This record gives sequence, C-alpha cells and structure tokens, in this order.
Amino acid sequence: MKGKIPPPDPGLLSLNTATVRERWSLREMIQGCARHGIRGISPWRDKLAQLGAKEAAKLARDNGLKVTGLCRGGMFPAADRKGRLAALDDNLRAIEDAATLGARCLVLVAGGLPAGSKDIAGARAMVRDGIGEILDHARSAGVPLAIEPLHPMYCADRACVNTLAQALDLCDALNPKRSGALGVAVDVYHVWWDPELQAQIKRAGRKRILAYHICDWLVPTTDLLLDRGMMGDGVIDLKRIRSWVEGAGYRGFHEVEIFSRANWWRRDPDEVLRIIKKRHRGC
Amino acid sequence: MKGKIPPPDPGLLSLNTATVRERWSLREMIQGCARHGIRGISPWRDKLAQLGAKEAAKLARDNGLKVTGLCRGGMFPAADRKGRLAALDDNLRAIEDAATLGARCLVLVAGGLPAGSKDIAGARAMVRDGIGEILDHARSAGVPLAIEPLHPMYCADRACVNTLAQALDLCDALNPKRSGALGVAVDVYHVWWDPELQAQIKRAGRKRILAYHICDWLVPTTDLLLDRGMMGDGVIDLKRIRSWVEGAGYRGFHEVEIFSRANWWRRDPDEVLRIIKKRHRGC
Repeated sequence: MKGKIPPPDPGLLSLNTATVRERWSLREMIQGCARHGIRGISPWRDKLAQLGAKEAAKLARDNGLKVTGLCRGGMFPAADRKGRLAALDDNLRAIEDAATLGARCLVLVAGGLPAGSKDIAGARAMVRDGIGEILDHARSAGVPLAIEPLHPMYCADRACVNTLAQALDLCDALNPKRSGALGVAVDVYHVWWDPELQAQIKRAGRKRILAYHICDWLVPTTDLLLDRGMMGDGVIDLKRIRSWVEGAGYRGFHEVEIFSRANWWRRDPDEVLRIIKKRHRGC
Repeated sequence: MKGKIPPPDPGLLSLNTATVRERWSLREMIQGCARHGIRGISPWRDKLAQLGAKEAAKLARDNGLKVTGLCRGGMFPAADRKGRLAALDDNLRAIEDAATLGARCLVLVAGGLPAGSKDIAGARAMVRDGIGEILDHARSAGVPLAIEPLHPMYCADRACVNTLAQALDLCDALNPKRSGALGVAVDVYHVWWDPELQAQIKRAGRKRILAYHICDWLVPTTDLLLDRGMMGDGVIDLKRIRSWVEGAGYRGFHEVEIFSRANWWRRDPDEVLRIIKKRHRGC
C-alpha cells in the first residue's frame, strides 16, 4: 500500500519566526538561520517591525535567505464599516512589506466572528469581499496571497476559513483563471485531520499551493493555541502529507511554525534550530 | 434573508447526564428531570452502571421520561486484533443496554488513532469495519446506531470521524437503503463551524438524524474537552441550526450536553436545570 517516501531536500527548510519568537529578534533569527544552513525564513509582522521591511530584506539577502512568506494579513471581518476599512488598510501595508521583502506570498488568516456576532456566513462573506478588495493591489505588487485555512477550533476567534476545500472555493470564486495571484497555505497542523485532505491538495495543484507549513499535533494537546509539537513528536503523518503536496507539484519550502509556550519557546533557539534540521529529515 | 424562527417545543428538552455528572447520580438526575418537567434523558454508561439498565429503564418510565440516547459505543480502532475484538464486545453490551432502556439510539464515538499510530486512514477503516460488525446485531435489537462526528480537535484521541459528510459517507456505505438502523447524532459543538453544515444536515434527512445535541462554543475556550458553554453564552447560532435540523424533518429531542469543569459542573444541578429550561427557549 505505502510506497517508500524519500526524505525531503534539506535545502527546502524554512524557519517561521513564530518558532523562536520568545528569545530571538529578527536579526538574530536571520543570522541563526545562516549559521545553521537554513535557507528560508518567514517573518511575522511583529518581528518585522523591529527592523523594518527594507533592512530585513537586505539582511536576509546578505545572509543568503529566501523570504518564504510574510505572516500575516487577513482578519477581514469586523463589526462595522470602519473596522473593515481598517483591516483593508492593514492588508495593503502588509502587501507593501511583502513586496519589499520579496516574500513568496502574504499569508492570509481570515479572521473570526466580529465581537458579539453569531453570523458565521456573514463573516465568511466579509472574508471573501476583503480578499476581493485587496487582490488587484497584491497582483500589481507581485505578491501572491495565500489563504491559510485554520483548524476549526479557531473558527470563532481567528479564522472562519477552516478547510482547504473552503479556501479553494474562495480561490475559484476570486481568481478563476488560477493566475498564481491567489492560492493557499497548507499548514499540516490545521488540516491533518481532514478526510478530504489528499483530494483537496490535488485540487489545489502546483499553482495554488503557495506555502507548506509543518509542525506536529501532540497527544494530549493542552492548549488550543500554544501547544504545537516539534515534527516527529505527534501524530501527523508528515511524510505522507508532503508526498501529496509534492505530488500536486509543489516545489517550495517547508516552513516550520511551532507555537509552544511550555516547551520550544523556552529553549535555546540554537538548540531548537539543530533539532528542526534533524527532524526535518523524517518529514 | 433570515426568517423569524419560532422558539422550540419545551417538551423536546432532554438532559444528557454529562451535564450534571459531577453532583448527581442517575437516580437523582431522573428525579430531577421529572421535578423540572424535562421529559428526556440520555445517560452515559458510567452513570447507567450505578443503577443497571433494567432499574434505570423502570425509573425513567415511572417518571415519564423518554431515553433519548445512550452514550456511548464506538471506540473501534485498536493497535491489535485483541483490542478490536474487545471494542466490539463492549459495543454489543452497549446495544443490549440501549435495548433494555428503549433508547432512541446508541451514540457512537468513533475512536481516535491507536497508541503510536499515525495511520488515520487505517483508523477510519477500523471504524467502518467496526460499525459494519455490530450493525446487524443493533438492527435485531431494535437499536439505531447514531454516528456522532466529533470536532476535528478530537481526531487524534477520541474520534477520527470529524464531519457530518464523513459520517454520512459511512451511512451510505453501510446502510445504503437508509433503513433507519444507522444515522448520525448532530452535536452543535462539533459541527457548528462546518461550511457544509446546512447542506449535510439536509443530506442526512429525517431518517438519519437520530439525535440532536446542544450547548455552546465559548470565546475563549480554555480547555479542549471540559469548557463547553451553556446555550446562549457562546457563538453558535442555535436557532439557525435547529431550523436546518427541523427543515430536514427531525422531530426528536434537543439534548443538552455540557462538559464544564470550571463552571456548570460546580453548580447546584437544580439551578443548572432551571437555566437549561430558560435558555432552551432561545435555541
């Protein structure tokens, strides 16, 4: 049944800054990646703000790093027009930064229900409209937008786009020609459980898989947000999912994004990077 | 867009024993329901074991209560054949008890990954096979089996059936004639986020919706298992989902199942039942 899946190309490893965010600045992360031979980095905007996009772009370039994504835009739903416009404005700034960085994509986290709302269909419509509003700008700036479906446990407060199918429906609606301007970020933590995962990765295809994020699902998981596991410590069949993503034609980076308050965030980031490199071989 | 949805029939309220499990025995729950004019009860098997099925059936009957379900069978995946056979055996006992109780259904929680396994497809196949193994027995006993898809956050350790679509695919495969012997339990907590929810409830239809469970999703949710909310305290549009369930033809009970270590489990169960009755009107 299961063919042997070869190990991944170590040159495709990328560090999402969330993984070592507690103890390193973006400068330290870039230098750390260079030191450990990790060739990609994907900053969150809080870290980017420390350096500014221009300086960060130069530092990444000087250290031989590709910027595999910028985290994050999105967060479209809001209780009123003012809030929705503020979100659009923030997304335009994120697109500018992503362009300056030469990021492979801007990751979009949809946003959850506006405060006090139970109207999930309404929130989803705001997401669709919001992406529609910024898509031309992103295209002009040369920044592909990657809709990241988040695990359904974040539906209320972080993202009401919760499956790859739903994200791809948005892509179909907003970019039916599949120009490359709009696609998805596949994060194993969010989608590993999905019975449709293989089929939807295939449906996404090479032009729409814009990022691939890895970590692991721990058993037990003790916190909804901050208890992700290092690859290999949980139950996700990372090799298999990578084989599907590669089968769909994806040749991009494997970005390690681990939110882990009680474990990985407390460790020496150099140790974390060493372990990431080692564990990546089994992914 | 949104038509006015009338309040629910208060006679359709049912108490799942999980809601008051910390402070009442099954006997107290049955008497409590009678005292508060709640006409349905759905016991978990730990509580049932206190009385035995025969005595519980008599006590429920004497107090004018319908047994709207028995929680739970399932838990099919296991690391070896011995474990799988033990699970089947346990399910046969649950079917006997459900028959003795005259329960409207036996709720099946699929089970997660066997210890050490990352083979989610394999676990799902074990679930399908397990249900297939017990279905004839359940049919003979007159006990409909209700597959309850659990929220994807329970995929690893509790249930690898995580969407209504997936549960209905199992029903289609194992009971294509829709005889009523196999269907689903729709628990809003597990499915409220699903973009396909309305369509899948419709697909399930009258003959396959065997139970309807209510509570609420809190923001924030502080525990993956034991932080469910009372109806009205969270973000689930309970009226809307009920309208879909009723639109599909469901006329059964609305079973309140709240796991809440820090709040509802600590309160006086009589107070909990009073609040449930009041909140049910807004569901």
